[in-house]
Amino acid sequence: MSTTPPKGFRDLVGADASLRQWMMRTISDVYAAHGFAPIHTSAVENLHILQGKDAGENENIMFKLLKRGEKLSGLLTSGKAPSEDDLADLGLRFDLTVPLSRLVSEYRGKVPMPWKVFHIGTVWRGERPQKGRFREFTQADADIIGAAGIGAEVEVLQAGVRAVEALGGREFDLRINDRRILRAVMTASGVAPEKAGAFLVLLDKKDKIEVADLRAQAEEMLATKIPTLLSKMIDGSFTLDDAKTVQPQAAQDLQTLLELLKGLHLPLARFGFDPSLARGLGYYTGPVFELRHSTAGYSFGGGGRYDELIGKFSNQSYPAVGFSIGFDRMMGLLQEQGKIVDERDKTIFMPVFDEALRGSMLDLAAELRRRGLYVDVYADRAKLGKQMKYADEHGYRWVILMGEDEQKAGRVKLKDFRAGTERDLTLTELKNWQAT
Amino acid sequence: MSTTPPKGFRDLVGADASLRQWMMRTISDVYAAHGFAPIHTSAVENLHILQGKDAGENENIMFKLLKRGEKLSGLLTSGKAPSEDDLADLGLRFDLTVPLSRLVSEYRGKVPMPWKVFHIGTVWRGERPQKGRFREFTQADADIIGAAGIGAEVEVLQAGVRAVEALGGREFDLRINDRRILRAVMTASGVAPEKAGAFLVLLDKKDKIEVADLRAQAEEMLATKIPTLLSKMIDGSFTLDDAKTVQPQAAQDLQTLLELLKGLHLPLARFGFDPSLARGLGYYTGPVFELRHSTAGYSFGGGGRYDELIGKFSNQSYPAVGFSIGFDRMMGLLQEQGKIVDERDKTIFMPVFDEALRGSMLDLAAELRRRGLYVDVYADRAKLGKQMKYADEHGYRWVILMGEDEQKAGRVKLKDFRAGTERDLTLTELKNWQAT
Repeated sequence: MSTTPPKGFRDLVGADASLRQWMMRTISDVYAAHGFAPIHTSAVENLHILQGKDAGENENIMFKLLKRGEKLSGLLTSGKAPSEDDLADLGLRFDLTVPLSRLVSEYRGKVPMPWKVFHIGTVWRGERPQKGRFREFTQADADIIGAAGIGAEVEVLQAGVRAVEALGGREFDLRINDRRILRAVMTASGVAPEKAGAFLVLLDKKDKIEVADLRAQAEEMLATKIPTLLSKMIDGSFTLDDAKTVQPQAAQDLQTLLELLKGLHLPLARFGFDPSLARGLGYYTGPVFELRHSTAGYSFGGGGRYDELIGKFSNQSYPAVGFSIGFDRMMGLLQEQGKIVDERDKTIFMPVFDEALRGSMLDLAAELRRRGLYVDVYADRAKLGKQMKYADEHGYRWVILMGEDEQKAGRVKLKDFRAGTERDLTLTELKNWQAT
Repeated sequence: MSTTPPKGFRDLVGADASLRQWMMRTISDVYAAHGFAPIHTSAVENLHILQGKDAGENENIMFKLLKRGEKLSGLLTSGKAPSEDDLADLGLRFDLTVPLSRLVSEYRGKVPMPWKVFHIGTVWRGERPQKGRFREFTQADADIIGAAGIGAEVEVLQAGVRAVEALGGREFDLRINDRRILRAVMTASGVAPEKAGAFLVLLDKKDKIEVADLRAQAEEMLATKIPTLLSKMIDGSFTLDDAKTVQPQAAQDLQTLLELLKGLHLPLARFGFDPSLARGLGYYTGPVFELRHSTAGYSFGGGGRYDELIGKFSNQSYPAVGFSIGFDRMMGLLQEQGKIVDERDKTIFMPVFDEALRGSMLDLAAELRRRGLYVDVYADRAKLGKQMKYADEHGYRWVILMGEDEQKAGRVKLKDFRAGTERDLTLTELKNWQAT
């Protein structure tokens, strides 16, 4: 029987599982320090929530739950083949923004606005698995609901960047753009709305294609000579001053945002306006941002303003802005960097020489745990050699030895495997000992 | 459009979400202090893993994932109705023990044995939702794989009970029994194997039925006069000495376990041998235990030894024992007790008087966060009254006021809403200030 997880899914043990737990705590702590409160949403949603108006793309990647019991058997015994819509009315969430938007509709009037929340959870997408890309993965989002001002962008951006910094992330670039500017340039350049999407996808490849090629492809796509503003976008010379000529409000907002971010001295290699940044998701309405690795080039997170999404779930709309950390990519980076999170320096191993001594050892272990130490008492009966091999396999540094003689004398031997030393201590001395 | 989560699923916001996060951390910390290491498994499993030999009951409660894309469309366009087995090959896990058993097979030889692990995660069961019982819930398990000795039972039990204690659990009873004793009594009493299960279910109702009624029902079920040992089980007079007459090894193990637990002074109202405890799950082979609320009577967790489960996933079997905390029931209890987890005492609110001052406020906030404080800078533009209403709705205690005059003078006003006091501080004084 195969015991690997399904394709695109994964398990974590040992250092990887510890790293994941530490990452979740670290991100939570940073978000909380920035005034965001945790929320928790159901992993399973009614399909009508997941199948929103913009969900065309999502429909293809969604995992749906097969109906159960009589609801299912009725369909299968009716004689004719059921339709896909017949077979499922629940699905697994594919992001955390749709559940949050549903939640806002559900809790409106019951939570103080602006509502600053963070949301760390598993999401599922039936995409083709690739290196570092899974069908089950974690997102870690900070969102502000009900704030229209650019101060909200600053809050989610600094919380996100500070969280990545706390994880040990270095060498990141933050790119910022505004959907309003992109729309205004398309309109001013006479690009037909149905071609704007494809043009933005092309523009997003700017770093990977030569300017001349990009221009040629754009001309072919738009079947026209490229007007000045579009041309500047293609060659990278489009500035906020150019943006001002078509969308003064958005340009002013981005300028304010960039000034505030500059004052924060965030740990970024580079940050600034990037008119080629589009961000795929259809729901963004204003500023959009992306955190990329400076050299590797791929994204570790991003977000933007989505003022119209929540209104789709209720008759009231709310301004909203969010930042999402690409948790699993970040984890992959930390693993590559050899990041190890462990508590071995404060963990003591206690082999059991004799089952008759287990009670005394458990007692001592409980006392040491009350003092904040981690204590692993060997759980089975085994020869001492096997127990010491176990300590070695765990890389434990501290070992307490207590045989019958020591137990009678109220003493223990404390070994430091790293230093290769051994001390003889009374129980009182041990209880006051500090792991260093 | 309905924005409630599906029936049996739920969202958590505000104090409830904070409580959940704190509970997860607290349990993790206690398990880690007892030498258990975290693991993380995929929420989605291949159906052949979930549909083990003992999975008859589980088959009915399992959520399966509908096949996708061409695999599905092929089935639906073939003309005849597909079978349930055709429609799905993946499912959501319904407990954490089956994934762990799969994991042991996958990682055998790669992890040190005994393997002490803890596992906190979401599981799904399509059961009828009831008060305090959901279709999506959390389990928090500690398990030891590869240890046959009773020392392993002690480790998982003390870790579980200490975790419940750290959550603030009081007034719990720990009941302990052994499947080997139950089996031996059934055999010695001539109870046919196919009737043993039903008899154990009946016995489990001992607290809710009069002894005379229980005896009458047992006689009817077994169609015989009740032999002495069974009679003692029914009236509650069955002791470990009685157990010794039919299963001396199990009786000795339980006696050792009870003595070791007694020495640990666990915070339990009562604990001891309970020959009527059966625990539902089919895979237990030795000691079983259950933590019950002393007065309310229902269970908050339990576990036992399952030495034969892992062998079903590979050609090698491993002794194994685990304890699982009923996370959501525990959460319900804490909510009833009014347990509140918040960081309000170390959280400072900073209203923004004027957007021109936002940069200075953000700078100050970053400095205070570096000192371990939580700072919430108002994210939007709003009149001061609205901002102070927001502070009030959050129950914030500390507020820093910085207007244009203060900013120029390098000073702030620090309000303590709880004490109703206000202090005038220089920025240096503020940076050295301690929230108390």
